[in-house]
Amino acid sequence: MINKLIDRIQKTHAPVVAGLDPMLSYVPEHVQKRAYAEYGETLRGAAEAIWQFNREIVDHICDLIPAVKPQIAMYEQFGVEGLAAYKKTVDYCRSKGLIVIGDVKRGDIGSTSAAYAVGHLGKVQVGNTACTGFDEDFITVNPYLGSDGVMPFIEVCKEEKKGLFILVKTSNPSSGEFQDQLVDGTPLYELVGEKVARWGEEHMGDTYSYVGAVVGATYPAQGKILRRVMPKSFILVPGYGAQGGRGKDLVHFFNEDGLGAIVNSSRGIIAAYKQEAYGKFGAENFGEASRAAVEDMIADIRGALEAR
Amino acid sequence: MINKLIDRIQKTHAPVVAGLDPMLSYVPEHVQKRAYAEYGETLRGAAEAIWQFNREIVDHICDLIPAVKPQIAMYEQFGVEGLAAYKKTVDYCRSKGLIVIGDVKRGDIGSTSAAYAVGHLGKVQVGNTACTGFDEDFITVNPYLGSDGVMPFIEVCKEEKKGLFILVKTSNPSSGEFQDQLVDGTPLYELVGEKVARWGEEHMGDTYSYVGAVVGATYPAQGKILRRVMPKSFILVPGYGAQGGRGKDLVHFFNEDGLGAIVNSSRGIIAAYKQEAYGKFGAENFGEASRAAVEDMIADIRGALEAR
Repeated sequence: MINKLIDRIQKTHAPVVAGLDPMLSYVPEHVQKRAYAEYGETLRGAAEAIWQFNREIVDHICDLIPAVKPQIAMYEQFGVEGLAAYKKTVDYCRSKGLIVIGDVKRGDIGSTSAAYAVGHLGKVQVGNTACTGFDEDFITVNPYLGSDGVMPFIEVCKEEKKGLFILVKTSNPSSGEFQDQLVDGTPLYELVGEKVARWGEEHMGDTYSYVGAVVGATYPAQGKILRRVMPKSFILVPGYGAQGGRGKDLVHFFNEDGLGAIVNSSRGIIAAYKQEAYGKFGAENFGEASRAAVEDMIADIRGALEAR
Repeated sequence: MINKLIDRIQKTHAPVVAGLDPMLSYVPEHVQKRAYAEYGETLRGAAEAIWQFNREIVDHICDLIPAVKPQIAMYEQFGVEGLAAYKKTVDYCRSKGLIVIGDVKRGDIGSTSAAYAVGHLGKVQVGNTACTGFDEDFITVNPYLGSDGVMPFIEVCKEEKKGLFILVKTSNPSSGEFQDQLVDGTPLYELVGEKVARWGEEHMGDTYSYVGAVVGATYPAQGKILRRVMPKSFILVPGYGAQGGRGKDLVHFFNEDGLGAIVNSSRGIIAAYKQEAYGKFGAENFGEASRAAVEDMIADIRGALEAR
């Protein structure tokens, strides 16, 4: 799957991920109204609204980019119905040839991580039948519990040729509270990065590992350091656009080969029609606004990489 | 909800939580067969089997203990169908008067944590209607992202009078890999514990805070220290029984008032019928075996607290 991701990045010339994080406030009123007319103002109605919203965006951008990253919390907030919309989104994106990075940030003690791993990446045995649960291509993982909380994910990835992005330095303002604490002069995020590099050696693709890392676009200096600490790990970079990151800030997340990073934008793409720059499309044409935002983002990052 | 938890602990004299973590291998064959006969060897069939298993156990133990802790991963491994069984379990336990601690270990950047918070503890707005998703009483939270990843949970807890248990020192063997790292001579888990105490001041019940902590039964020395660091926080203590903890090792997790901790056992209760000690009940009477195991666990912990 890491080889497929690289192949798709090279074909699209776009190291870009669209974050499918559909807050209801992003969903145009006409889409919400149609869904509520059918299912009422219920969890089912909300789930239908976000699914219809996602589908139209995916239809408009799927040829431009290699991957999408649905944030499961935005679905889980609508309970079981919301998670059914998450599953529909995952399946639809894969049917369109997109690689799906499930932003689930799971992580627990060994036996529990194993259950998350089979549920999201592998197969679960029911009697004599192997069944698939959510079936994403990659997921994000929280490392706070240490190696025995991470290894069960890697084991399933090996079987399924799937991958992980492990939280190293997150994009939020208070990420430093624990992640920046100095351990013998080295920040904790760097120790986690060293572990990611080591875990990554356990499961290598042709040139990069199946085990990647999450490092926020909002911390470019740390990104530069972590790029060296984890030379064979892809870095998933959230925080572009709405959270503040820009193409020129992100060049050091990439290796010399122009690979090694994939940049996520969520609100900046899926709610583009609400921005002044794309206002001309109007709420009716929110899919086209998203396409224009993706094109601009690709140009920004491509330009920054060429200019370095 | 923390006041209710304390009230129920005092009425049952049992600072005990039953972990409803139904691996299919724990579910007796007759229960599995019945479910597969109806729904096939499918995710739905598995979900039905674990729901029937849970219900029978809950019926046998609900008068003995204050709370249950379903581990969502054990349901999530069966996809959307599994999560529907999780929701049914949550609702059923609450209808029986049990306090439900959703062991979900969620945690993300602010806006995403807010979505998890409304989905699990609060209400989500759909048009003009406020809907509830999973509706547990407490959930567990991962602190790796820092304060702005935790505060949205606390905000929703204030509105709903619900609570949290934040991971401080987990029960697994490699929990020390990051959690024990020394920052100016102080282990990271202690810094997290100090934050839990501070976050807890934001949302106090009558005598204890709505913001508690998770500290593994497998680390009694650290439990003793953390008890002092977070005097007003309840400690949820997993790892009793199958993972190695025993009543006498756990007395220092409690305050002098006999409160301040609640001890979880999962496999030791729900798969009791598979143990030699409760083998006489047989797989047919797995619910009675669970009841006997709960009674023994309560006696062990009560005895240890009285002997100190």
